[in-house]
Amino acid sequence: MKTVKAFAAEKADQPLGPFDLQRRTPGPSDVEIEILYCGVCHSDIHTARNEWGGTIYPVVPGHEIVGKVTAIGSDVKNHKVGDTVGVGCMVDSCGTCGNCEEDLEQFCEKGMSGTYSSYLQDKKTVTYGGYSTSIVVTEKFVLKVSDKLPLEGVAPLLCAGITTYSPLRHWKVKKGDKVAVVGLGGLGHMAVKLASAMGAEVTMLSRSPEKAKDADKLGAHHFELTTDLENMKRLKGTYDLIIDTVSASHDYSAYLNLLRTDGVMVLLGVPPTPEQIHATSLIFGRKSLAGSLIGGIKETQEMLDFCAEHGIVSDVEIIPMDKINEAYESTIAGDVHYRFVIDMASLKD
Amino acid sequence: MKTVKAFAAEKADQPLGPFDLQRRTPGPSDVEIEILYCGVCHSDIHTARNEWGGTIYPVVPGHEIVGKVTAIGSDVKNHKVGDTVGVGCMVDSCGTCGNCEEDLEQFCEKGMSGTYSSYLQDKKTVTYGGYSTSIVVTEKFVLKVSDKLPLEGVAPLLCAGITTYSPLRHWKVKKGDKVAVVGLGGLGHMAVKLASAMGAEVTMLSRSPEKAKDADKLGAHHFELTTDLENMKRLKGTYDLIIDTVSASHDYSAYLNLLRTDGVMVLLGVPPTPEQIHATSLIFGRKSLAGSLIGGIKETQEMLDFCAEHGIVSDVEIIPMDKINEAYESTIAGDVHYRFVIDMASLKD
Repeated sequence: MKTVKAFAAEKADQPLGPFDLQRRTPGPSDVEIEILYCGVCHSDIHTARNEWGGTIYPVVPGHEIVGKVTAIGSDVKNHKVGDTVGVGCMVDSCGTCGNCEEDLEQFCEKGMSGTYSSYLQDKKTVTYGGYSTSIVVTEKFVLKVSDKLPLEGVAPLLCAGITTYSPLRHWKVKKGDKVAVVGLGGLGHMAVKLASAMGAEVTMLSRSPEKAKDADKLGAHHFELTTDLENMKRLKGTYDLIIDTVSASHDYSAYLNLLRTDGVMVLLGVPPTPEQIHATSLIFGRKSLAGSLIGGIKETQEMLDFCAEHGIVSDVEIIPMDKINEAYESTIAGDVHYRFVIDMASLKD
Repeated sequence: MKTVKAFAAEKADQPLGPFDLQRRTPGPSDVEIEILYCGVCHSDIHTARNEWGGTIYPVVPGHEIVGKVTAIGSDVKNHKVGDTVGVGCMVDSCGTCGNCEEDLEQFCEKGMSGTYSSYLQDKKTVTYGGYSTSIVVTEKFVLKVSDKLPLEGVAPLLCAGITTYSPLRHWKVKKGDKVAVVGLGGLGHMAVKLASAMGAEVTMLSRSPEKAKDADKLGAHHFELTTDLENMKRLKGTYDLIIDTVSASHDYSAYLNLLRTDGVMVLLGVPPTPEQIHATSLIFGRKSLAGSLIGGIKETQEMLDFCAEHGIVSDVEIIPMDKINEAYESTIAGDVHYRFVIDMASLKD
């Protein structure tokens, strides 16, 4: 075991603070990683504050991890010391169920091991995330990261990137498809970049006119105000796919109405309470309301390679570790463009 | 013009009664059909009673029509006098919009012409349905019906058949797929028969234990009680596709929970009020909640051919025209196995 520096929440109502963490000595299949950057995902906040229930305290959040390999186990084949690598939302899964066999580890039937506030596959060992100087992860869940891109901008790809890439691929977005993105935050800004890079004609749907300029910069071809009801009427039947990243309560039917025949609206955000839906908003036009959760490891690697090829990173604001509590408040207020990323050097000093 | 006998509702709160109807003289593309049987669909009742609003009175319901060709226009190529034919829920569409060009006339962007309480494409001429001795329909919307099957059982295929066949095909049901059907009525009993014929392993999900025997007779491989919560827990993650035919208010989430990863639940029924749905019930397992509306003309012909090949008809109870008001009450009470069909000879005498 090795003691490493970390930041943890000890209780739901306490700010995060310094915490000493024990990381296991790398086993034969393990990769030890020095963490360089870790993104700040809204899930980190929900978990630190136990807003989804079930948080295991103390919790060390962080599942958008980029770093350098510092040691490998004797059986590790795909990574070597000095490689730049990433770790996302998962650090293990059973590997043998139907979903794991289809590279959908996020839906592992025995339960995947989340990167923090979760258990390894022994269902006993608690996992601690990326707000720390080092992490040890089994080889299969370690992703290769290109050195071509600025690493601080790569970190959020490990969650925000794959969460938006996966549905765009699953629902087969291709050149010329009309894709709309609802919500311009950590997920939304990646959805715009990725859909544009796939050749789609991308529209940002937003309630805030001041976001038009940013949407344009990110690569959106159109910006449409959803508060303008005449606008919404005009846009009826327009989009092949709508990526809905909003976690606040909102009216699904208003967006379903904008789909073409056979169009799909994919939910990535989880509003706090159930939303209402009338069957007719799906029946007329044979539409689908779907959900999507991060992505499998194979697809995450594919996404990282796609981003390296297309020069795509997240837009980030770098913070030192000790500014994490302020960063949480800004994230909740939506005051970040578009992801805080912790420079882990700040924790090493 | 020709005067033909029919049954109509003159107002929302009045029973149906005899009505003289003017049918047009067949034009060059028209087919004149002597109606032999017409099924009684729940939509007929909703429309006769203006429960969906917008009914054009007097209304002659009926869109599950089977009969014999009695005359054809000079340009008609696909039908000849004496042929057995069918007419379903539509009698025309624009024919030129994107959806029409993709054989999805039910989603015609200019509005398809419903078989009753609707307008022809001139948007002026009111349509009158199959509770009558004769109908004139443009060639493209007239289906070929095999004489191999009992015609009274074929009539409901024109709505209940295609409404269930279309989603089974669209979501590519194949041998061995696990398909569940919710609701054992006019639609549900056809869904069981068709899914079984496609090679699926079919489960009837029902709140009524007394339906188990019928489900078995119809070809369902399993019957599961949805009121048994232990049962519902055991069935979690089981089905590839759920066909939901229920029009009463019910909890979508309880059924979504029974879907496998990437499973789809298709709504065919329209509950009176919106239902609640929590994003997590779609996000975990990348599930979809979809809707489907009848089917296009090409697919309706395919369905009729499939039924002829597999010896599939609807289970029906034959009634004379003057028992229609009693039949409506029994349909509302769910006291029919599984479709009333009017023997139109009873109106000719």
